[in-house]
Amino acid sequence: MSKRIRLNAVTVNGPTVSPGLWAHPDDHAHEFTSLDYWVRLARTLERGRFDAVFFADMLGLYDVYHGNPAPALTGAIQVPIHDPTYLVPAMAEVTEHLGFAVTVSTTYENPYTVARTLSTLDLLTEGRVGWNIVTSNLDSAARLHGHSTQVDVEVRYARGEEFLDVAYELWERSWEDHAVVIDKAAGVYTDPALVQGIEHRGTWFSVPGVHTVDPTPQRTPLLFQAGSSERGRQFAAAHAEAVFLNTPTMQATKFIVDDVRQRAEKLGRDPDSVLFFPKITPIVGADTADAHRRFRDFLRFSSTDGIFTLLGAWTGIDFAEAGEDKLLGIASKSDTRGLVESLRRQKPGGDWSSDELAQVFAFGTSALTIGGPEEVADELEEFIDFTGADGFNVASVVQPGTIDDFVDHVVPELQKRGRVQTEYAAGTLREKLTGRGPGLPDNHPGRRASSAVRTP
Amino acid sequence: MSKRIRLNAVTVNGPTVSPGLWAHPDDHAHEFTSLDYWVRLARTLERGRFDAVFFADMLGLYDVYHGNPAPALTGAIQVPIHDPTYLVPAMAEVTEHLGFAVTVSTTYENPYTVARTLSTLDLLTEGRVGWNIVTSNLDSAARLHGHSTQVDVEVRYARGEEFLDVAYELWERSWEDHAVVIDKAAGVYTDPALVQGIEHRGTWFSVPGVHTVDPTPQRTPLLFQAGSSERGRQFAAAHAEAVFLNTPTMQATKFIVDDVRQRAEKLGRDPDSVLFFPKITPIVGADTADAHRRFRDFLRFSSTDGIFTLLGAWTGIDFAEAGEDKLLGIASKSDTRGLVESLRRQKPGGDWSSDELAQVFAFGTSALTIGGPEEVADELEEFIDFTGADGFNVASVVQPGTIDDFVDHVVPELQKRGRVQTEYAAGTLREKLTGRGPGLPDNHPGRRASSAVRTP
Repeated sequence: MSKRIRLNAVTVNGPTVSPGLWAHPDDHAHEFTSLDYWVRLARTLERGRFDAVFFADMLGLYDVYHGNPAPALTGAIQVPIHDPTYLVPAMAEVTEHLGFAVTVSTTYENPYTVARTLSTLDLLTEGRVGWNIVTSNLDSAARLHGHSTQVDVEVRYARGEEFLDVAYELWERSWEDHAVVIDKAAGVYTDPALVQGIEHRGTWFSVPGVHTVDPTPQRTPLLFQAGSSERGRQFAAAHAEAVFLNTPTMQATKFIVDDVRQRAEKLGRDPDSVLFFPKITPIVGADTADAHRRFRDFLRFSSTDGIFTLLGAWTGIDFAEAGEDKLLGIASKSDTRGLVESLRRQKPGGDWSSDELAQVFAFGTSALTIGGPEEVADELEEFIDFTGADGFNVASVVQPGTIDDFVDHVVPELQKRGRVQTEYAAGTLREKLTGRGPGLPDNHPGRRASSAVRTP
Repeated sequence: MSKRIRLNAVTVNGPTVSPGLWAHPDDHAHEFTSLDYWVRLARTLERGRFDAVFFADMLGLYDVYHGNPAPALTGAIQVPIHDPTYLVPAMAEVTEHLGFAVTVSTTYENPYTVARTLSTLDLLTEGRVGWNIVTSNLDSAARLHGHSTQVDVEVRYARGEEFLDVAYELWERSWEDHAVVIDKAAGVYTDPALVQGIEHRGTWFSVPGVHTVDPTPQRTPLLFQAGSSERGRQFAAAHAEAVFLNTPTMQATKFIVDDVRQRAEKLGRDPDSVLFFPKITPIVGADTADAHRRFRDFLRFSSTDGIFTLLGAWTGIDFAEAGEDKLLGIASKSDTRGLVESLRRQKPGGDWSSDELAQVFAFGTSALTIGGPEEVADELEEFIDFTGADGFNVASVVQPGTIDDFVDHVVPELQKRGRVQTEYAAGTLREKLTGRGPGLPDNHPGRRASSAVRTP
């Protein structure tokens, strides 16, 4: 039987998913400061049986291109960008099943604070929260948080590992399952014998006490990861239950899926317990010709300055100085975010033409699928069946039009084919997405924290 | 003309406002993990024309009494306690006017992160957010955030001042009023000439860059403060637009109101631009006898262990060791949170009987008003007219019953007398509460940050 295709929508709490497209007449993303905008999106996604909405996030400005943030500001390239975690309660209030994957960095936050935030959200949403674990890779974010420059990548990941250890201890070990008794007659709200301090003393963090939040439906929120560099893949293999990918082709996607699953297996995890969600940007028309007409219309708004602003931040190369030609040679340069590895894998010599690159980056780095509903459904099925991925992060060209079209035309076609769910499964986000739960699987490293005290 | 009586509800994202009362059969506060619980409260408060809901918060456990957190856990004395800021979006989604004052510490957070959080909330609520600035006073919170013990109070306040400087710069100066243009034809989302880095380099923080959030309706959220120690009053006089008070009598309230207003005037601020909200716990019955019957019923659930747990955390004295007698002598001891000063002012010799103290602390430290609707309304009017305060923080004995009763019976009586608003004023929380805005008043120190660049 064919694998179910899971669907997430990827967005940010800001005006831009595809660079430049905010200026398209059909785009309403500048309305993102209104709760109504997000409530409407939540309802649309639940109508389309999406599993979750994934909020990317940035903690600094993109200021490498031209050496300042002006191009990012002018083109709204991830600025303004507001805290996405605060959209969750309002979107949860108007939905019953939709999940929420929020990006929170391990580099500038305190694990005690982050554990509390995510526990609070997991309770308020009745177990519908995922955490996209990032270590943050922007120099500007480092400076804004008081560092003189970016923290070294190995230090960032080592600190990230200890950060996770603390979070796991707070989520999995501090409170036993039946600690909260709410016995009014006896006057006992919590049984203190079933609550303990985690006594963590490590290199970066000292957290002696107990979690201030009682156990939530998932305890540890569903764990997502999005880095596809070599180091990021190893981190994903160790911790991630789901991986977001910015891979523009099936080949690049399959490489990472296979690689991370092999690494996970070497670490003693079930390789199929890691789910993969490549980003895809669908451009859906009434038929092939209509879709390509729309594509050409959208392409007029795709911003070259915007693309260079993104690529500058991701690679550290200022293409204003380097010239466009340099873009063709980046395969031999910086390795930030795995982007370059992806490109290299698609054309081993790195021999990309300007036209090809424009297409790859037109709407951010993303696979594109262009066509009528059946044609798009065919491509999505082929993509999943070839790569071994488990679903898509659906990205928007225009907001909310791209998601509206996808839900109205592509989802019904995929449902007809039995590839997209027509009703939600019961339970938490973990149970809905992975079929297991509500807690972490037994062979997940986060469970080490719990084994000593978890009641049978 | 008599002053309007403004109303806030004070609560926490946890089961306890009045110690022990969660166990009362009429109490539903253990339902606090559900969004429905908060959505219902939001609707009730807006029906009662409350100005705002104030979320207190604690970042650690109360573990002085008996030297461990067991009494706090057993009696649910501020544990569990979840992050209150995440209740705001859901409560804002179902209301139009209700304001939200959230407690965020300057001691364990980064000003860049906090500024972004509060800006995000101010935009999503269309300007209905207040910030209760606390420096945090719990040893347990300090330890949980990686410090070996509590940071010295002077250091905490000095760091708090610099924290505010950074926040003011981000809110008031980084983006000029018309920076966001959203000119689709020109392809300009933000005019970069109207956005600048704040270049802050201080003792505790280095924040060179620009705010990632564009100007919000209030820019700086309405500023609340709750410390009533001498140092806290000076901080309030410098920064607060509204002050929450835990003063159990009119005399103690009037002392602080007069003191902070005098200090504010010395600092060049309009003394009447600082609003005061003493905490009051109303016990309303059909008539006097019915109210006192309810009071006696509630009193049976008031928890002595709970009170000692609170007092232990606030004073640093373990009353399990010291014995109850010591309670009578605390006026000569620690000064934490101004509690002791309050008590001393009410009885200069500190000569409190156990019965008197039990009454003062029965439902936390709070003034009590007990009676039929007209009687309670009389007392509230007298309280405001005597003290010069501007309204109340209404605290609950049982949740949501206390607020339900107050809204159904006392608010209509106060409205009949012209003391409580029957309709909301237009605009942001600052405009609704202070009659001015939407930005900070000109003579507020936060405006220093803005004067250089604010467009005329």
